[in-house]
Order: sequence, then C-alpha cells, then structure tokens
Amino acid sequence: MNAEIITIGDELLIGQVVDTNSAWMAEQLNLIGIRVVQITSIADRREQILTTLKEASSRAEIILISGGLGPTRDDITKNTLCEYFGTRLVFNQEAFDNIVRLFGVRGYTITPVNRAQAELPESCTPLQNVNGTAAGMWFEEKGTIYVSMPGVPFELQGLMTDHVLPRLAKINGQKIIHRTILTHGVGESFLAAKIEAWEDSLPRHIRLAYLPQPGIVRLRITGTGTNKQLLENEIDEYANKLYAIIPEYIFGEGEDTMELVVSKLLKEHGYTLATAESCTGGYIAHLITGHAGSSEFFKGAVVAYSNEIKENILGVSEDTLSHYGAVSRETVFEMAAGIVRHFHVDCAIAVSGIAGPGGGTAEKPVGTTWISVLSPKGAETRMFTFGEHRGRNIRRAALAALDMLRKQLI
Amino acid sequence: MNAEIITIGDELLIGQVVDTNSAWMAEQLNLIGIRVVQITSIADRREQILTTLKEASSRAEIILISGGLGPTRDDITKNTLCEYFGTRLVFNQEAFDNIVRLFGVRGYTITPVNRAQAELPESCTPLQNVNGTAAGMWFEEKGTIYVSMPGVPFELQGLMTDHVLPRLAKINGQKIIHRTILTHGVGESFLAAKIEAWEDSLPRHIRLAYLPQPGIVRLRITGTGTNKQLLENEIDEYANKLYAIIPEYIFGEGEDTMELVVSKLLKEHGYTLATAESCTGGYIAHLITGHAGSSEFFKGAVVAYSNEIKENILGVSEDTLSHYGAVSRETVFEMAAGIVRHFHVDCAIAVSGIAGPGGGTAEKPVGTTWISVLSPKGAETRMFTFGEHRGRNIRRAALAALDMLRKQLI
Repeated sequence: MNAEIITIGDELLIGQVVDTNSAWMAEQLNLIGIRVVQITSIADRREQILTTLKEASSRAEIILISGGLGPTRDDITKNTLCEYFGTRLVFNQEAFDNIVRLFGVRGYTITPVNRAQAELPESCTPLQNVNGTAAGMWFEEKGTIYVSMPGVPFELQGLMTDHVLPRLAKINGQKIIHRTILTHGVGESFLAAKIEAWEDSLPRHIRLAYLPQPGIVRLRITGTGTNKQLLENEIDEYANKLYAIIPEYIFGEGEDTMELVVSKLLKEHGYTLATAESCTGGYIAHLITGHAGSSEFFKGAVVAYSNEIKENILGVSEDTLSHYGAVSRETVFEMAAGIVRHFHVDCAIAVSGIAGPGGGTAEKPVGTTWISVLSPKGAETRMFTFGEHRGRNIRRAALAALDMLRKQLI
Repeated sequence: MNAEIITIGDELLIGQVVDTNSAWMAEQLNLIGIRVVQITSIADRREQILTTLKEASSRAEIILISGGLGPTRDDITKNTLCEYFGTRLVFNQEAFDNIVRLFGVRGYTITPVNRAQAELPESCTPLQNVNGTAAGMWFEEKGTIYVSMPGVPFELQGLMTDHVLPRLAKINGQKIIHRTILTHGVGESFLAAKIEAWEDSLPRHIRLAYLPQPGIVRLRITGTGTNKQLLENEIDEYANKLYAIIPEYIFGEGEDTMELVVSKLLKEHGYTLATAESCTGGYIAHLITGHAGSSEFFKGAVVAYSNEIKENILGVSEDTLSHYGAVSRETVFEMAAGIVRHFHVDCAIAVSGIAGPGGGTAEKPVGTTWISVLSPKGAETRMFTFGEHRGRNIRRAALAALDMLRKQLI
C-alpha cells in the first residue's frame, strides 16, 4: 500500500518550523510495511489543500494530513475537508467532553472558540486526542483512507500510536524491512567500488542506498515482500556477505553512534577513559558525556588549547614541543601518556591537529591531525589528513580517534 | 515571485533523514522576498521526478531541487534532468578541476565514478560547489528557473549562499527586511507579556515572530515594502524601542551565538579564558573552539567528570566535596578558582550540575546546576534549576554560564 503525507501550515513554508512530523510518520508507516511515495508541505489555503488532496488520492491509498486544526481563524483544514468530502460540521459530544477534561486539568475556562473544536465533519470517524483539543479525523472514500491530525508533534504522535497505526497495520499486508550498516573511514565512491560485485548480486526486491555524512557512510539495505521472516533472513544473508567484504569499516548498525559503540565496549571491559584534546576542543568529551551513564567510565578531559597547558597540566616536555611542534607524533603521544598518568585511567585518547581555516603550513596543511590512543589492549599513534572545513575536521578527528579505540577494544 | 522546493531521496520518505534543507531554503528565499508555495519530497524515481517538476512549473517561477546528485547508481537526478530538458551530459573541465582539487586535499585517487560527476547537462549553467564533488546546475526554460543542488546540507548551503540567492535577489523586486533579536534567560510567554504593548503598536506591514529554542527566544521582526531604506529605518526604530524594554535579556542579533558574543568581548578586553566543566562535559569548550580564532584567547578546559579529577587537577578540597557535595556553591567556586590558578587565565567558567536522567535527589533534583564565573570585572556564583532532559540541560547550562561572563564583561 502507498501512502502520502501532507503537512499544512504557513510556518513550514517560511522555514520557521522544520517538518519533523513527516519523517516520524514515514518511519512509523515503514515499520508496518506501508511505503510513503510523497511528502507535501502546503500553506493554510483552501484551494491548495483541495488540489493537493485530489492529486495525492490519485497516487496513494492512504493520505495522512497534519496541521491546520488549531482554534484560530488561520486554521482552515477542518472546513476545507468538509468541502472536499461534501459533508458538514456537527457537534460531537465525545470530543467536547475531552476538551472539558483537558481544560479542567489546566484550570482554563471554555470559550466559544474552544467549543467549535468539538464540531467535526459528519462523515468522519473521530479519533480521540488525549493530549490536545483537536480530535483526529478518519475518512474513507472511494477506497482511499484520509486521516487528519493536529500538527503539534506529541499530539500527532499520540493519535498515530493509539489509533492510526494499529488500524493501518491491520489493513495492510505487505512488509518492508530495512537494515542500516554504518561505516567509518572510507569515502562513498571508494566504498561503492569495493562492494560493486555484491551490490550487483542483490535481487530486484532488495535495494541499497548510500547515506553519507562527514566521516561516515551509512549503507541502507531495503527489502520488500509478504513474508517478514523470509525477508529478514534474506537481508541478514546479504548483510553477512557485506560484513565479510568490508569488516574493517563497519562500526555499527541502525541508530548506533561511534561514541555509543565505544562506550559500550568500555563498560563491557570495565575500563575507564579520559581524553586530552587540542584541535577537537572538548568535542570528544562532549560526545561521550552527552549520553546518560557515561560517568560510569568517563573520568574527564583536558582541553589543551595552548602549549602551556600541554606542558603544565599534561606534562608534555618543552623539548618535544619546540623540536617537533604541537601537531606531531611525539606531542600527541606524550599528551596521551600524560592523561593516563594524571587521570589514572585505563584508556586515553589524545588529539592534536590543525582544524583550520588558519594555521596551516606547506609541511602541515590545514586538516593535518595526529591521534594517539592508549588502552590495555594496545597503543597506536597515527596521522590523518582531513579537509579544509573546521567543523568537519573536528567531527572527523573525533570519529577517527574513537574508531581507533574501538578497534583496540574489539 | 513564487518558488517551490523539491527534495529528492528515498531516505526522506522512510523517515531516516529529517528534511532540514527545505526549511533552511524557505527561510533564505523569504529573506529576499520570494514566497515558497509548496515543498515536495519524493523518491529517487525517474517518473516521479519528471511529474513533480512538471507540476511545480505550473505553480512557481522558481524551482529549487535538492538531492540525488551523489556518485552512486541510486542517484538519478542528473540523468532525469537531462531527459526533462531534452539535453545531454557533456564533460565539464571546471567541475572536473574542482573534483581533482578536493581529492588532492584529501589524498584520494579519482575513480571513473568520480569522473562521471564532472559530466553535466549541456543546457545548464554549472554552479561551482567548493565543498563537494557534485556541481550545482542552473536551468532556465519557458520563464521558469530550475536549480539542482546536492542534498548534503553544507554543500547546499554553500551553493545557495554563493550563487543561487544572489542571482535570485537580483531578479526579484519586492523587499522583505528581517531583523532578529536574540534573548536568553526568559521564557516565551513571560517575554510576550512583557512586550505586549510594543507588539500591539506595530503597523500591519511589520510583523513579529517568536522563535523559541532551549534557553533562547529569538524575536524576528519582518517588514515588507518596496523602499528598502525606508523599511530598514522603520524597523530600526521599533527595534530600539524593544531594546529599551528588555535590555537585560538581549545578548545579540541575527546569526550571533552566545559563544561568539562572549568570544568577541574577550578579544576586545584582551582577556584569556579556561573552563572547568562537570555536567557540561566539555560542551562549553566545544562551543568556543568550534570557531576559528578561539586559540587567541581560549587556553583550555578541564572536564572533571569524577571527584578525583576535581581534587587532583583542579584542587577542589576533599572537605568541600564531602561536606557540600560535587553540585554545590562551594565546589563550583573552587573549580573556577582552581582553573584560574592552574591555567593562568583572566576569566574562568565552572559548571557542576545534575544533567540527568539519573542522579537527582529530593534536595537536588535533576536540572540543579551551579555555575561560577570569575573575571577581572567580577565574580559570581549562582544556582539554576533547569529541566529533566539531559541534552537540553547541558545546552542551557552552557548558555547560562556564557551569559554570566558576558554580563560581567559589558
């Protein structure tokens, strides 16, 4: 079954609000095997709503509509739906009781404007919105299902979870399975060349997509079919083959992040970690401490942005700094050793590089980055050459450093 | 002039990626007086791309297309555009030189797949993408402008800023002026009550929008008219009145960030800074070092996630920690004093709090955060009570700490 999503609201078209509802709805529909073929964002305008509904109904059997159900004059979706379906608004006692309940909780008085929210199109099946005053509306006409919901994300998500998804899952038969494999340290085109034969071997109902981010390429395998178990087995088989071709690049799957994968390994080993960061400026510490539970293994960091700190706090020798420079194998190794010594940790990450845009030389251009990683499982110090963009260099250095630690721990 | 945005990519339709490009483009188009009438997200499918282009061209004079320009086989936008415009791919030396330059920087070898990215539709004007290998493409046909750009946000934003927006601004006549005033430390509804009379005094062609983010509310004043100078003067006048009402909350304007405002003040005073971070976990250091030139004044940070580090590296006394706890006025003040002493800096920020979701007690619930700021202009230690969400607590603590330093320096 095909679905379309229509989001209504001027705020979307002036860029004031990012349309996160669509991605959430699309993900949820996919999980129950419904493919979204188009997402359309339009203004709170009668003619545009009517045209868009008509066009969508020619492509999809399910149309989910969000937004435009507020109590104010600029929200015209409900009246426009009445016009589209040739029906009229009638007072709905259940919807009104819900408004009374919500207003009681909040201690508000009900105004005529609120009362009008309990008037719903006669031909729809109302869906109770426990989180807000605008009810959901389920219409069926000429074999197409239309569902209208408010645009407030948690109200929409409540309605989808409580009413819309269970109903749609029952109606639909077809299954779609995704598996996303995360790679680091390899460019999209190099990866494509490396797995070309494997990609060519995929049957028609299994497709591959490359989703690149700075430092990371996600490989999404998507299969469609009617037997969920069979499809899962088939995708697992192809994924296993992929693992065999590029084991060195794969660090996780799905919603994994590099820092979470490393955090999990550290906890499994019972190891502690601290970082000594120059060019990454605390970003690695921030990535790790962004997650609950990091205090179990993460003891802290020194951001050594000046040579003075590298010497005084981390104990990098003055000789090393003056002879080899702050961005060198010797300095970054002494930073890592210093953090192990002073922070009494099992594992250490040290990074020193030229993030840019200034500071590059012919010998050490912007992007030059030295990383040293020490753990009970190994010690490695390596140079990387990233690009010219400061933010991305910081991101890529952090990922590369964490990946070095990951490889020592597995 | 009307514009439509078309974003292409299966990842949008399965909800794997939230379409942030559309909101950004819509906002930018609005700034130069171009109205977006529809945003459409579709799959990497030839027929759907062709149909969507045709439909969009019946509603808008400007069509911006993002996505589907990668080097891999699933990206079919370029070939489909050739079909739509009845043109063919030809090798473009300039685009190839750009790829060679980018690959040289990264130390990669160019594969045939990369070379194919330098083949562009004959009828387009290529737009150089300094941030990536896929060039932008500008088409004009039957009075409609079509621009195709890669979907990677920073590549798209670079192309828009360098090429597309300046060209479109020249073509369009109507002026829209925005001025965005940034506030910190005050909630949206409290702010609305405070500036109600001012808001009511705005004429019809000048509008106000509240754009809240965690810890920050942006107030965007938008005026429309034909005389740019007159409009600017009028908006400046209203902005000045707003400054007079809420001076204590305003920290900047437009693209300012709290860390950049503070960085500028530090440079002006010739002061150095270091941070001692517990619950913010290096996030303040990361915010500051994310910007070029921060090494001029930022000497470093200690992320003291364990008490051991607070004692050994920062010199917080064991008595203080055992008597008052890690999240206390006394500890955070000693952290700030310790960082001044060890890092030899003029200014220090120290933060210790309970970011959550665990670790809260009845006396110190999740969100409790102590911040101490020392500078040659003052010394202040304060407690804040943020919310329950870890990521937002980290963000709000960092903003509050930087704002305390800002207030000392102005």
